[in-house]
Amino acid sequence: MAPPHENTVCIFDTTLRDGEQSPGIALNAHEKIEIARQLERLGVDIIEAGFAISSQGELEGVRAVSQAVECVVASLSRTGEEDVDAAIESLRDARNPRVHVFIATSDIHLQHKLRMTREQVLEGARFAVARAKAFCSDVEFSCEDATRSDPDFMAQVVRAAIAAGATTINIPDTVGYTVPAEYAAILRGLYDRVPELEGVVLSVHCHDDLGMAVANSIAGVEAGARQVECTINGIGERAGNASLEEIVMLLATRRPHYNMETNIVTQEIVRSSRLVSRLTGYPVQPNKAIVGRNAFAHEAGIHQHGVLAHRRTYEIMDAESVGLHGSDIVLGKHSGRHALRQALADLGFTIEGDDLKRAFVRFKELADRKGKITSLDLEAIASDSLREREEAYRLASVAITTRTGEQAQAEVTVAGEDGEQTATAQGDGPVDAVFGAINRILGIPVTLVEYSIGAVTGGADALGEVRVVVELAGRTFSSQAVSTDITEASAEAYLRACAHAKAATEPEQELIGV
Amino acid sequence: MAPPHENTVCIFDTTLRDGEQSPGIALNAHEKIEIARQLERLGVDIIEAGFAISSQGELEGVRAVSQAVECVVASLSRTGEEDVDAAIESLRDARNPRVHVFIATSDIHLQHKLRMTREQVLEGARFAVARAKAFCSDVEFSCEDATRSDPDFMAQVVRAAIAAGATTINIPDTVGYTVPAEYAAILRGLYDRVPELEGVVLSVHCHDDLGMAVANSIAGVEAGARQVECTINGIGERAGNASLEEIVMLLATRRPHYNMETNIVTQEIVRSSRLVSRLTGYPVQPNKAIVGRNAFAHEAGIHQHGVLAHRRTYEIMDAESVGLHGSDIVLGKHSGRHALRQALADLGFTIEGDDLKRAFVRFKELADRKGKITSLDLEAIASDSLREREEAYRLASVAITTRTGEQAQAEVTVAGEDGEQTATAQGDGPVDAVFGAINRILGIPVTLVEYSIGAVTGGADALGEVRVVVELAGRTFSSQAVSTDITEASAEAYLRACAHAKAATEPEQELIGV
Repeated sequence: MAPPHENTVCIFDTTLRDGEQSPGIALNAHEKIEIARQLERLGVDIIEAGFAISSQGELEGVRAVSQAVECVVASLSRTGEEDVDAAIESLRDARNPRVHVFIATSDIHLQHKLRMTREQVLEGARFAVARAKAFCSDVEFSCEDATRSDPDFMAQVVRAAIAAGATTINIPDTVGYTVPAEYAAILRGLYDRVPELEGVVLSVHCHDDLGMAVANSIAGVEAGARQVECTINGIGERAGNASLEEIVMLLATRRPHYNMETNIVTQEIVRSSRLVSRLTGYPVQPNKAIVGRNAFAHEAGIHQHGVLAHRRTYEIMDAESVGLHGSDIVLGKHSGRHALRQALADLGFTIEGDDLKRAFVRFKELADRKGKITSLDLEAIASDSLREREEAYRLASVAITTRTGEQAQAEVTVAGEDGEQTATAQGDGPVDAVFGAINRILGIPVTLVEYSIGAVTGGADALGEVRVVVELAGRTFSSQAVSTDITEASAEAYLRACAHAKAATEPEQELIGV
Repeated sequence: MAPPHENTVCIFDTTLRDGEQSPGIALNAHEKIEIARQLERLGVDIIEAGFAISSQGELEGVRAVSQAVECVVASLSRTGEEDVDAAIESLRDARNPRVHVFIATSDIHLQHKLRMTREQVLEGARFAVARAKAFCSDVEFSCEDATRSDPDFMAQVVRAAIAAGATTINIPDTVGYTVPAEYAAILRGLYDRVPELEGVVLSVHCHDDLGMAVANSIAGVEAGARQVECTINGIGERAGNASLEEIVMLLATRRPHYNMETNIVTQEIVRSSRLVSRLTGYPVQPNKAIVGRNAFAHEAGIHQHGVLAHRRTYEIMDAESVGLHGSDIVLGKHSGRHALRQALADLGFTIEGDDLKRAFVRFKELADRKGKITSLDLEAIASDSLREREEAYRLASVAITTRTGEQAQAEVTVAGEDGEQTATAQGDGPVDAVFGAINRILGIPVTLVEYSIGAVTGGADALGEVRVVVELAGRTFSSQAVSTDITEASAEAYLRACAHAKAATEPEQELIGV
């Protein structure tokens, strides 16, 4: 029953696949590359980059990530021939490709989703793993909804997958239903039923619907799993996946207890969290473990007590260990393009050509206003330059007047493929008026679903980051924009979200898995 | 070793005490009452309302809660005579008072925080429990930093506390360091060492620094605990406390597994979450289990698969069970004050007199703009009326002009005790200019720490809710305001936060515990 693997847990990051399936997240290839590069700096062992069959854009996203990083890149696939071939196609350029095949093994999924017999599932698993194996030696197989599956049937499928060449077997708690003791028992039962499991890597993949994703993942590790599938900030379907930073810091902080290590460079955790939060538009709540704003903060009063005298009275981790207070690169208004490029490179952004040109313009504007530019400001500018490059519409100008008791007036000019268009509108406040004017210009019936603003850094001259989610025909589209002027950022973010919605008049089929 | 208690877990909610100790949260007595009333509707067994000795305002907050609810109200206290007496004083009017005494039992806290010997700690526990017991029969005793304490010494202290009259013994993981198996072993070891523990209620109190608060709490229940201390949305010191909604829904969803129940009315969970988020200014991330916006959401593509055909393919809980789609009260612009009062009462708000008058004015304004007013709108209006009543300053008017490429201009008029004052300012965008004008009027050097806007409901006519956190002399002050016009809401929220900061020129001593 005891697993033969060593004391290292592989971190399989699925931020770009399961995380990206969260409502409203739509990363373009450039954004996927930036996140993948940061994940590589973070030291993850495997990056799951997408679900290639789901759309051409998705396939190209996986390919772009494959070209950008050296670590293992996984591409998800169902068991059909076309599915597997799309995954293979997306990994052609990967230095270390992994095809990740999955099929549900629970009766509820067989009956209501797949409408397949157990024999068909078994055959599908065999076929897909073998087909993937012909392309690359590294093949992972997942039993979707494993925790609600008949253990004997699941064991049969796992044996078949290993026989066909699978080198990693993943037992996901797809619906976030299991609890630690139960999950450990399922995994131990599988070891008992499938002796061949000793020769491959067992993996866990947990969802947080009942708040147990991290605890279940760790129970899995204790039962023999040596790969944990997780995401930055715990994003993912519904309540999300197990949070990478919690898994890693739990194993690191309680090292003597678990006697397990990971290859993660923990000092890159906070930056990875910020980048993912910014590019996905998913905020991190202040009381989120490890990466929340308060995770290392104590209310003022406590300083009268023990913390200053002896930090370990209340702190079990060092804020430096997760990179909370990294060296703060500061540029001034006289810094040139070379200095900016170097500073961005230090932050991990590879920005060249037109992107660098745009980032430099933004940098200069901001430096004129703020004087000093911190690394947080630079991260925001760099992310925004990445977003901007593929836009069909550009905000040319915004003018607003408003006074208490009167309707706000906005005049907006947008530059598109057919030249500039200007519209005016009234509204309850300036932002409402601006959105109304943009609606007139684009002429699509979007509904505003969410609108939020956060400050990138503190202080009155802070960059404001606006996140907008709009809905069109049942689909949601999100975007972000940053500016020291929040009405400008609001207009920019709304325009981008609406442009995405407009571009998606022919919605592509979207799929989920695991 | 097996505990004698039945299969009911008491829910001890500490949102108003440990939750309220989060940086930037400062609830006034009215806000505490509203939350306490909602907690009572939610069915919590015990409400910890505050830490009476920490300030006069805190003591009065506990008293106000004591007067407002029928359930057990706990007041926290260290072991000193004045501490205990303040707790007792705060509970004079409580129908079911509980004094909650705590003292640290770990050597690290004894040495670095308390500077006390073990004998002194033991004596302190005895003294304080006995003194509390003379006032009320219901006394809880907590060993602060229990999970890092010497088990034998902790057992000694627990025996002394029980001998002195404690009826609940709480074993907190104050620093969020423990893991489930270890925590269960600590509790089982305590049962072995202290046979008298069988005659009292064992309680758990877990922090989420490593993401294990819920798993640890449940491990505690499995080891015999029948009280769980937790907070709405998991707010609290640092990464927060165990999240009430996760504990409760885990026990409810996995009822056959744990065979434990709570007295919680789960249909009140979502509303409780919204109220606490709104009044504390602490947002809930979209992927938060149970109460996050996405917790019950599936990405669009999935509908092509199983969910519509058979919800249980991906859903393990019913959204109705947590009150996600409660009956949506809708009022129109012809609804009168009586209808508003009734609708607010249905939502659980007891709003009378001037508060009702103000709420009615807000309601009419909004009804004129939106036509239909939903329960979410009403909740926002009601919360805002509660906030407004104690303000020393009132926003009289705001006027703004801004155009791309030029500085924004703002003119703000504020009514205070000394009459009206008007100031103008320029800024990077309208909000910056408005804040500048308010700074000129109030004349205090606050720093803007955080600024965020969320929409109360979807749609272009949504109420925007602005949250502002400012810092003055090392302390943070937060406030919120709602309006369909976000510049107006921004001005209002900023003015309130600055007014709080100004009022607190003499900072009171603040304490933390457990």
